[in-house]
Amino acid sequence: MAENQSKHKTAIYPGSFDPVTNGHLDILKRAAKLFDKVIVAVGDNRGKKPLFTASERMSMLKSVCKSMKNVEIDSFTGLMIEYAKKKNADAIIRGLRAVSDFDYEFQMALINRKLEGEIETVFIMTAENYVYLNSGIVKEIVGFGGSAKDLVPKEVEDALRRKLR
Amino acid sequence: MAENQSKHKTAIYPGSFDPVTNGHLDILKRAAKLFDKVIVAVGDNRGKKPLFTASERMSMLKSVCKSMKNVEIDSFTGLMIEYAKKKNADAIIRGLRAVSDFDYEFQMALINRKLEGEIETVFIMTAENYVYLNSGIVKEIVGFGGSAKDLVPKEVEDALRRKLR
Amino acid sequence: MAENQSKHKTAIYPGSFDPVTNGHLDILKRAAKLFDKVIVAVGDNRGKKPLFTASERMSMLKSVCKSMKNVEIDSFTGLMIEYAKKKNADAIIRGLRAVSDFDYEFQMALINRKLEGEIETVFIMTAENYVYLNSGIVKEIVGFGGSAKDLVPKEVEDALRRKLR
Amino acid sequence: MAENQSKHKTAIYPGSFDPVTNGHLDILKRAAKLFDKVIVAVGDNRGKKPLFTASERMSMLKSVCKSMKNVEIDSFTGLMIEYAKKKNADAIIRGLRAVSDFDYEFQMALINRKLEGEIETVFIMTAENYVYLNSGIVKEIVGFGGSAKDLVPKEVEDALRRKLR
Amino acid sequence: MAENQSKHKTAIYPGSFDPVTNGHLDILKRAAKLFDKVIVAVGDNRGKKPLFTASERMSMLKSVCKSMKNVEIDSFTGLMIEYAKKKNADAIIRGLRAVSDFDYEFQMALINRKLEGEIETVFIMTAENYVYLNSGIVKEIVGFGGSAKDLVPKEVEDALRRKLR
Amino acid sequence: MAENQSKHKTAIYPGSFDPVTNGHLDILKRAAKLFDKVIVAVGDNRGKKPLFTASERMSMLKSVCKSMKNVEIDSFTGLMIEYAKKKNADAIIRGLRAVSDFDYEFQMALINRKLEGEIETVFIMTAENYVYLNSGIVKEIVGFGGSAKDLVPKEVEDALRRKLR
Repeated sequence: MAENQSKHKTAIYPGSFDPVTNGHLDILKRAAKLFDKVIVAVGDNRGKKPLFTASERMSMLKSVCKSMKNVEIDSFTGLMIEYAKKKNADAIIRGLRAVSDFDYEFQMALINRKLEGEIETVFIMTAENYVYLNSGIVKEIVGFGGSAKDLVPKEVEDALRRKLR
Repeated sequence: MAENQSKHKTAIYPGSFDPVTNGHLDILKRAAKLFDKVIVAVGDNRGKKPLFTASERMSMLKSVCKSMKNVEIDSFTGLMIEYAKKKNADAIIRGLRAVSDFDYEFQMALINRKLEGEIETVFIMTAENYVYLNSGIVKEIVGFGGSAKDLVPKEVEDALRRKLR
Repeated sequence: MAENQSKHKTAIYPGSFDPVTNGHLDILKRAAKLFDKVIVAVGDNRGKKPLFTASERMSMLKSVCKSMKNVEIDSFTGLMIEYAKKKNADAIIRGLRAVSDFDYEFQMALINRKLEGEIETVFIMTAENYVYLNSGIVKEIVGFGGSAKDLVPKEVEDALRRKLR
Repeated sequence: MAENQSKHKTAIYPGSFDPVTNGHLDILKRAAKLFDKVIVAVGDNRGKKPLFTASERMSMLKSVCKSMKNVEIDSFTGLMIEYAKKKNADAIIRGLRAVSDFDYEFQMALINRKLEGEIETVFIMTAENYVYLNSGIVKEIVGFGGSAKDLVPKEVEDALRRKLR
Repeated sequence: MAENQSKHKTAIYPGSFDPVTNGHLDILKRAAKLFDKVIVAVGDNRGKKPLFTASERMSMLKSVCKSMKNVEIDSFTGLMIEYAKKKNADAIIRGLRAVSDFDYEFQMALINRKLEGEIETVFIMTAENYVYLNSGIVKEIVGFGGSAKDLVPKEVEDALRRKLR
Repeated sequence: MAENQSKHKTAIYPGSFDPVTNGHLDILKRAAKLFDKVIVAVGDNRGKKPLFTASERMSMLKSVCKSMKNVEIDSFTGLMIEYAKKKNADAIIRGLRAVSDFDYEFQMALINRKLEGEIETVFIMTAENYVYLNSGIVKEIVGFGGSAKDLVPKEVEDALRRKLR
């Protein structure tokens, strides 16, 4: 274990980010203070029929994260844990908002540990003012003509409005 | 945020450790791979009437952790988050075993974040074969004459047997 | 706050009601005793592909609620909270059956409070003999030829049987 | 049911309030907008060994609630539901903070409904910035010399400091 | 496994039964239909300070279960799983009422399986009208002078009233 | 009740088994030790669009269960509880892995009890090393080219690979 000490540590923060919300950014900022590098990994899974293409989602992320010096934006296809291994990641970052997240996250953490025991899943609590926030609810609000102020960055709200008009 | 990059990172792993179990050691090993230094902080809270004194608990921890080069054993009184601040910790480590842990841990993480916003609570899932394990259940089993093999290190089982005889 | 005292209080009870069950009616009766007026608001959301049209769902509700003097049946499209604001509602009524309802309801209550802070979401526990009851399970039972007696009013069961034949 | 319409509605908000927190006050303000009268009912249960006497707890409540015109402060001994019946209450108010509250509250609501079917338990979600807040945690923080600013009103913090010195 | 077929099957239903409630009896009747013999095992654990002695609790159980031909009443001290092994039990019966029971029961089932892998813990759902019922709540109601009709058998209510007068 | 004693007991273990996993087999082995006969009942529900046909799923089950003498493989359409009644079942077996299973299972157990009060739902905890395991996750892993060793029997992994190529 000693040889792991002081090594440069890399974490992956995987997700759909369809689109990125202020809740995601809150977790990302917290993770960026704990790890030497954080790679935001946009899942490019055709099955899921996202609203934004992987490339649109990466553009938005690059734009809103440009001031975070140790954060990189990337995308992956296939099993996330395989991607993490290829990137020599030390940790997977997951945000927890509420107890309903827990069981799914617990199962994914255990299965990922089984597939690749050297990469640890690390959970960070979201700020309490984002506990209700997810990408789906933002799309629903903007789709019905409501305001997403405080929920997503300004340019993401604009992109949502253009898509959902 | 950039200035946090590549800084040496310290995590606190607080608890009663009355006594340390294999579940605690599992979390500790995982944490020791993610952080440059992990301080196991034994809470010395008289109100709780522990079975072992803080000094006995620290001795057992020192003995079973002696091969982990980046792990230190310490104790604290008063508010844990104040102790963490004094130690310049970047993170608090907490193990999650089951959904029943979740709400309490969520509340403590939020209150600690309110008291000291710069220190992040980070959750790590216990190995699935320790989901049922806590110090209380070990004390109960040994107290009734059962075997705690696989639940605690050998020397902790011996210490328990001497105490509970 | 004083000026709110003794004001006539209106609550909205929103849902799909596809179809109304005895569980919904149980919550509705309890709400009708606490508020001066309760508006049952049928969500007319095409995306959801209901079994009954909004107009059929409203007809069934009107028929089974006709003896409740302070209950009105209405429908809405778009964001429910916008509809509630237009109706000058004081409260949104939600039934809680089980812990699995909790997280979703908690998130919706917080997002609705954010969108419109003056309207409070109020939760009422369903009677214990309806904890297992939802519209989906009734459709499944009747669809397979089972009996929905005690689960929905007689005329709703008849309507289900005609639809699902 | 018709005769219940437009009747003056009274709600009881029972608890230990040892001491009252900003979370309690948040729930109370929300309840005071929904009901014509809200009685804050301080449980005077010797078994529980409170930090403040019932009379001290009532004094603090009276002081911090004095601007709420439709709020009364009272105390009770024995079964809360019996007290609510004597007060002709229409509803019992309970705050929900997190899923761990849910089961206990669900059980109490059902048992109270069994003992007195005419009084409904009504749940209101706490503001998200108080999800972690309860009287116990405030006592612990102040007891260890920390600050309870934003957690309890100023005069309650002062009273706590005097008690716990 | 074949040799286990058609063997006479024995289940243990352990608990404090301080005192037995209608919820316990509901679980017991269900278990008695599934197993050839069910032993109700009263835990005689001095540490817990029960209201009724183990012998009083057994008397009440014997009286209310006398019509169940395949049910025996017994008591045990020490680890329950050791007692179950001595009795050659095939299964441990536990009632589940609500999600809050789940985690504790899950942990106990796993630890008991670890201590004795041949005895399976089997969970049965309580009838929905007993989800709120436990011995503690009955003691509280009767202690405050309320009625425990429908919660415990008549003779148990009488015994409670004598004890708590 | 006495006449139920010593009667031959039959349990149904229903599910999609699309495909059978080591978690299913773990529950099945435990159930087969408690009941005289266990019928694994493959739900043949067209609505669900399974990966394997009912007949393929039954073949795999027959092959992997062939050494369990008191286990039969069958399939059913329509309501499971109707099928269980036709088979004169005494019990329905359900595996519990995590708290997220609990609410759904609780609701199904209650609705099935309502539809057929004589058949009891009995829950068995899965082994802790299978808490994360379900058929969906296995399909996802194999679909992305990962290994399902330890998750499903060898021949099921081969069948998955052929289907998902």
